Amino acid sequence: MLKSHLGVNEDNELTIGGVSTVELADRFGTPVYVTDENKIRENYHRFYEAFDKKWDDFAIWYAYKANSNLAVCKVLQDEGCGAEVGSLCELKIALKVGTPGEQIIFNGNNKSEKELELCIKNKVLINVDNLQELEIINRIAEEIGENARVGFRVNPDVEAPTHPHISTGLRKSKFGLDVPSGKAIKAYKKASKMDNITVEGIHSHIGSQILDPEPFMEQARKTLELRKKIRKEIGIELKIVDLGGGLGIPYRPGEKELPPEEFASKIVSTVEESLKDQELSKPKLVFEPGRFIIADTTLLLGRVGYVKERKNIPHWVSIDAGMNALIRPALYDSYHHIEVANKMNEEKTESTNVAGPLCESGDYLGKDRKLPPVERGDLLAIYDVGAYGLSMASQYVGNTRPCMVMVKSGKADTVRERETCEDLTRLDKFPDWLK
Amino acid sequence: MLKSHLGVNEDNELTIGGVSTVELADRFGTPVYVTDENKIRENYHRFYEAFDKKWDDFAIWYAYKANSNLAVCKVLQDEGCGAEVGSLCELKIALKVGTPGEQIIFNGNNKSEKELELCIKNKVLINVDNLQELEIINRIAEEIGENARVGFRVNPDVEAPTHPHISTGLRKSKFGLDVPSGKAIKAYKKASKMDNITVEGIHSHIGSQILDPEPFMEQARKTLELRKKIRKEIGIELKIVDLGGGLGIPYRPGEKELPPEEFASKIVSTVEESLKDQELSKPKLVFEPGRFIIADTTLLLGRVGYVKERKNIPHWVSIDAGMNALIRPALYDSYHHIEVANKMNEEKTESTNVAGPLCESGDYLGKDRKLPPVERGDLLAIYDVGAYGLSMASQYVGNTRPCMVMVKSGKADTVRERETCEDLTRLDKFPDWLK
Repeated sequence: MLKSHLGVNEDNELTIGGVSTVELADRFGTPVYVTDENKIRENYHRFYEAFDKKWDDFAIWYAYKANSNLAVCKVLQDEGCGAEVGSLCELKIALKVGTPGEQIIFNGNNKSEKELELCIKNKVLINVDNLQELEIINRIAEEIGENARVGFRVNPDVEAPTHPHISTGLRKSKFGLDVPSGKAIKAYKKASKMDNITVEGIHSHIGSQILDPEPFMEQARKTLELRKKIRKEIGIELKIVDLGGGLGIPYRPGEKELPPEEFASKIVSTVEESLKDQELSKPKLVFEPGRFIIADTTLLLGRVGYVKERKNIPHWVSIDAGMNALIRPALYDSYHHIEVANKMNEEKTESTNVAGPLCESGDYLGKDRKLPPVERGDLLAIYDVGAYGLSMASQYVGNTRPCMVMVKSGKADTVRERETCEDLTRLDKFPDWLK
Repeated sequence: MLKSHLGVNEDNELTIGGVSTVELADRFGTPVYVTDENKIRENYHRFYEAFDKKWDDFAIWYAYKANSNLAVCKVLQDEGCGAEVGSLCELKIALKVGTPGEQIIFNGNNKSEKELELCIKNKVLINVDNLQELEIINRIAEEIGENARVGFRVNPDVEAPTHPHISTGLRKSKFGLDVPSGKAIKAYKKASKMDNITVEGIHSHIGSQILDPEPFMEQARKTLELRKKIRKEIGIELKIVDLGGGLGIPYRPGEKELPPEEFASKIVSTVEESLKDQELSKPKLVFEPGRFIIADTTLLLGRVGYVKERKNIPHWVSIDAGMNALIRPALYDSYHHIEVANKMNEEKTESTNVAGPLCESGDYLGKDRKLPPVERGDLLAIYDVGAYGLSMASQYVGNTRPCMVMVKSGKADTVRERETCEDLTRLDKFPDWLK
């Protein structure tokens, strides 16, 4: 049942990357995020190799929004992975860890001129969201005397079986250019005539945490159809087909993964099928996985403060990690598997709710879980929190954000220091008249 | 329609505290939170006076979790308002702005020993959540040779008509001691025999954003019944009855407020009614308003980047403020009124969705709003964001958190500086082996 980077030692403690979680909690304090470096590399390799066997020209650009910790980004850069970024700061991080500009893609529906300028200067591929943006890019490129590399985010109107907050390919979505109405084609026409624009790609992304191959195949089919239409009507052949991210992971025990091998094989055969009747060259396929690469590499460890036993309804156990550290259960009603990390051998007899320390009912990590009897001082491990954990963390109710530790083959070191109370008010000041 | 601190100047620009929002956006940049100091004071006075006319002994302890910006807390301390805090850092802020320890109350379901120690040392009233915590408090108090002032958070099982995340008084809630099962009485019995504990109060809180007086009256009735039972069975008369917070505000146009005057009058008559057949002294009534004090004092200003017109479905307008700055629409499906701040006189003809800049479908501020035709460069004002706005903000998708400006009678000054990209990675480092 346990994944390759997790284990149980002879003291019945959960281990990650060969290190006891109990030792990690003692050494670094709680709450703490713990990420296994080797597991990041393993996930990347698995995704890479799934395509390597089936398609000549492809690239993987890791979605920074899942987790843009410097060390995480450095590890992936070290593997040759590119970066999918969506803000000025993410772009700066990608450059800082040494990602070549050509291996960075910038997405987003509201790019600032500052962001666009930095993209153009670094030859970052910009996935343009709308026509207004295209004109601004052309103007900035002219001003700085460079050509801008662009693709267009198109909206293929594909329904994704996921949470509405992370379903992005429907026509009503805020993202991209509508395909059926002809807006997408119009944009390519316009771009192809602009002096400072090099049209290189087409981009679609239907959502996140998807475990069914069908919508991905529909997306690929529709995106390639549009590529063909662009060739036919405008005469340009798009080199890059960026199919976005969205490959999910099984969060619940028993949930079935969509293996990247199957994902790759179905995408590739769809692409090959689409190319059959098209006299077009094979495109470079680009993928932007975030969750698949980073989610299951990481545990969140929290110490039990109090236990409330209740009759006929689940007990409450409260720990020092709350919705400020991990908002996914409250925001998306997400399930994260939970174990008592120091009682891995004990029988799971108690129906238990796990609460965080914040003064809000939405502050829970899991409800109605079977756990062994829990006591004050026990250590709980929340699974699969590498994606959208620390990257969405807040300081709500005056809680400092957790630190983050990286482990590797028995070693452990801090990759993000724990905040202090001073960090919360560091930027606060009194107005002139109140001093 | 406009509240006292908001207005429209002769250029048809929205003003706050006598300052044009357009000027504020130009001077401080966007996105920016703007809070009117006088409105904070006005709201506090209104709540205070509602009770001042009807009850001798009462106190208002502002709920820091709504907004714990230093300047906001200082303004309220200056008015004589106490503090309701829920973490070590919030407690430190309350002390830092000069709140006397006796006017601070500490709530929460997972208090750390460090927090409890600082409470006891400063004579902060601790609302104890469970029996384990009580024993720890008694032990710490003994160790440092002080008496701990305590109340108990009791769970009166009152259903609040609000979002499940902020409904806290049901039996299944993580908070407090169950009343019907007798757990609450047992706790008072135990506490009354402890050497280092002074039992002073009883605390209940049924939820947040409530505009119906009935649940508050039921809560008051049940809490006072329990106070009576405690007197009868244990012989102690609780001086402090802390009825928590929860008074909502009307967010939607046309939504009816629950005036604090009516709230006070209904609470007070319920309390008087309950006391009639009780030979008990009048308690000190304590309230913990957060949202009522701070929500409507504040606007979030965001600049329009792009406009996407769509046929038959609402247009999309994207601004530079997103769910990282204000998560309430995504998290609670909250409604915040939106105006085009530089076009206050124009007719609202367009059905419009307002998006933030983040790569996520959940990143929107409002959907299907009637607005005037919006153009790039326009300034949008999101209303009533003083509570649970900046206090829940994150750096998701590498976005820096907005700055915050305080205005007062035509003056404006920064009370929280804007973050920079450096702030996002300030605590990040590479592990030893990756340097």
